[in-house]
Amino acid sequence: MDRYGKRSDLIVHQREPFNAETGLAALAEGPVTATDAFYVRGHGAVPEIDPAAWRLHVDGAVERELDLSFATLREAFVERHVTATLQCAGNRRAGLIAIRDIPGEAPWGAGATGTATWTGVALADVLALAHPSRAVGHIGFEGADLCPEAQPVQRFGGSIPFDKARRPEVLLAWAMNGEPLLPVHGAPLRVVVPGYIGARSVKWLERIEVRATPWPGYFQHVVYRLLPEDGTPGPGRGIPLGLVALNADVLSPAEGEAVAAGPVEVRGYAFAGGERHVVRVDVSLDAGASWSQAELLDDLGPWAWRHWRATADLVPGEHEILVRAWDSSAATQPESEAALWNPKGYVNNARPRVRVRAVANGDDAGARSS
Amino acid sequence: MDRYGKRSDLIVHQREPFNAETGLAALAEGPVTATDAFYVRGHGAVPEIDPAAWRLHVDGAVERELDLSFATLREAFVERHVTATLQCAGNRRAGLIAIRDIPGEAPWGAGATGTATWTGVALADVLALAHPSRAVGHIGFEGADLCPEAQPVQRFGGSIPFDKARRPEVLLAWAMNGEPLLPVHGAPLRVVVPGYIGARSVKWLERIEVRATPWPGYFQHVVYRLLPEDGTPGPGRGIPLGLVALNADVLSPAEGEAVAAGPVEVRGYAFAGGERHVVRVDVSLDAGASWSQAELLDDLGPWAWRHWRATADLVPGEHEILVRAWDSSAATQPESEAALWNPKGYVNNARPRVRVRAVANGDDAGARSS
Repeated sequence: MDRYGKRSDLIVHQREPFNAETGLAALAEGPVTATDAFYVRGHGAVPEIDPAAWRLHVDGAVERELDLSFATLREAFVERHVTATLQCAGNRRAGLIAIRDIPGEAPWGAGATGTATWTGVALADVLALAHPSRAVGHIGFEGADLCPEAQPVQRFGGSIPFDKARRPEVLLAWAMNGEPLLPVHGAPLRVVVPGYIGARSVKWLERIEVRATPWPGYFQHVVYRLLPEDGTPGPGRGIPLGLVALNADVLSPAEGEAVAAGPVEVRGYAFAGGERHVVRVDVSLDAGASWSQAELLDDLGPWAWRHWRATADLVPGEHEILVRAWDSSAATQPESEAALWNPKGYVNNARPRVRVRAVANGDDAGARSS
Repeated sequence: MDRYGKRSDLIVHQREPFNAETGLAALAEGPVTATDAFYVRGHGAVPEIDPAAWRLHVDGAVERELDLSFATLREAFVERHVTATLQCAGNRRAGLIAIRDIPGEAPWGAGATGTATWTGVALADVLALAHPSRAVGHIGFEGADLCPEAQPVQRFGGSIPFDKARRPEVLLAWAMNGEPLLPVHGAPLRVVVPGYIGARSVKWLERIEVRATPWPGYFQHVVYRLLPEDGTPGPGRGIPLGLVALNADVLSPAEGEAVAAGPVEVRGYAFAGGERHVVRVDVSLDAGASWSQAELLDDLGPWAWRHWRATADLVPGEHEILVRAWDSSAATQPESEAALWNPKGYVNNARPRVRVRAVANGDDAGARSS
């Protein structure tokens, strides 16, 4: 067991603040990601919080400000459970960095995402107690974590539209996969916004602000925004990220792996984000000239990814396995990773591809090539 | 003025049942499409309905069945207005047909879409009066139009998820752009489901059925489904269409047009569908190697497309203008039209491109080439 209660097979991008992604093998273990393997994205040191002293403040455009203890939260509201996939906006950034470097940003692979069952109360229920005014547009969240990279230095924060905040799937959660939240995942309380980029699921929540406008802080107004290829980050520049775009990746076989020729099982995940769901995943062995449909595995509900598997019949030699997912609007992923390059390396949702070498019996199947 | 109160510049694909799309010049007149230029997609003859005798039945999984006159509908519920884009699932099918023929399906260009302001009552308000049971999943709609192409012959129908049906933007509409509905657009009453394919905005509405499962009729269970490239239509086969996928097209200049070299205004539309909105449109003159951002024009609210314009500086010679739109999940359109080909020719949402010839002063600018 590594620091912060995490397994040693996480791929650590940064020690402090701790940033680490789940390895592909751990993701492939099943559609619910083990807590000790779940990715961590942080912008500041994990704050030390005494749950007995902790309070949740609700203020802004409300008729009644709230100041709630952890015990009150648990006693005064209905407990709810949601199985939801979280995904960092920088997931699969490594594919963009391979095209052109993105200095200062971690080269996340396909493991800056995971799925857990979250337990807590509906944000909507807490908001109802505060009686938001009619002019409300956005619900802001502020954590206890001070983030040195922000300009100026500030606590992590972000907001979601009020219309989303009122929906029953948005939780203030104290448990993950049936266990109390680990400190590194936001204990005692974090937001979970299913279908939105992970950055909106603010950890170490201490304050909810009912607002007319989106969160003005650094992590929504300056970064976590999609810039054009030739853009530079700045206040209000670019597209504010929010809904997760349709994405997919291959978990097995790994890039460059040598496999035994013959039928090879291909496994991966696909996640539609937003209010959409994955309806089909296709696999091609001939660069997209023809496709066969993968089998969609466990359906964990509308807020979770789908794992999928397909069988590829590989003759000895080099192969490229190309994948495309489709969402419930019948939209599919863009082809070209290069065309998605952007200065902060967000939202790489190009069709994934892995190159493998199929070797005949007696050769070195099972080992990585080169 | 042509039949059905339509202008003569519509592109008529079928006389009976009447199917016609809006010309690009008419679409380019502004973000609200004139009613007499609005596209028409029908599967049966326009039914003759006496509004005084017409009734709306609400049945299925409800506590209280309803049987409402047109007068009651207008008097008993709050009147609402929504500006919404409708888009046929076959919009831009011509681009797919150019790759491989799709027998029996109309070669719709970019004009099987349009935007109007609709007036009526919220479906949610009518449903509330009927008290749907707790087991409800879908709200079905049935029109008065008998459709000979269906197997077996049946009235047109379809359903939307109950969660969508409860939202305030879904109307039962009797007016379009401030005038009573034309018979060809569904008078006396039609459904308008913003963000969904046009087929769910059932015309000549006579019955609403509260259901546990999606509509079992031909136009949802057999067609209006996305098949794999090698599929054949059949009950339950393929992905049921619903949410409109992000799409865009160029309205001006036209494909093959000769334009004066120098600054050329490029105009078009982009529509995000679903619960998303268009956040950016890019134009490339070098096959996607570099992009410049178009200006987004009038914002008509969350359910309408965005018109856009850009200036392309064209030296004399042949040019290809390539466009990509982005939605609020930071997703963009797929590149390859060929890769989207499917047996019924639905959901062509590839990046649009038009080829133009820029001619120096004194040459034949303004005329179509060849």
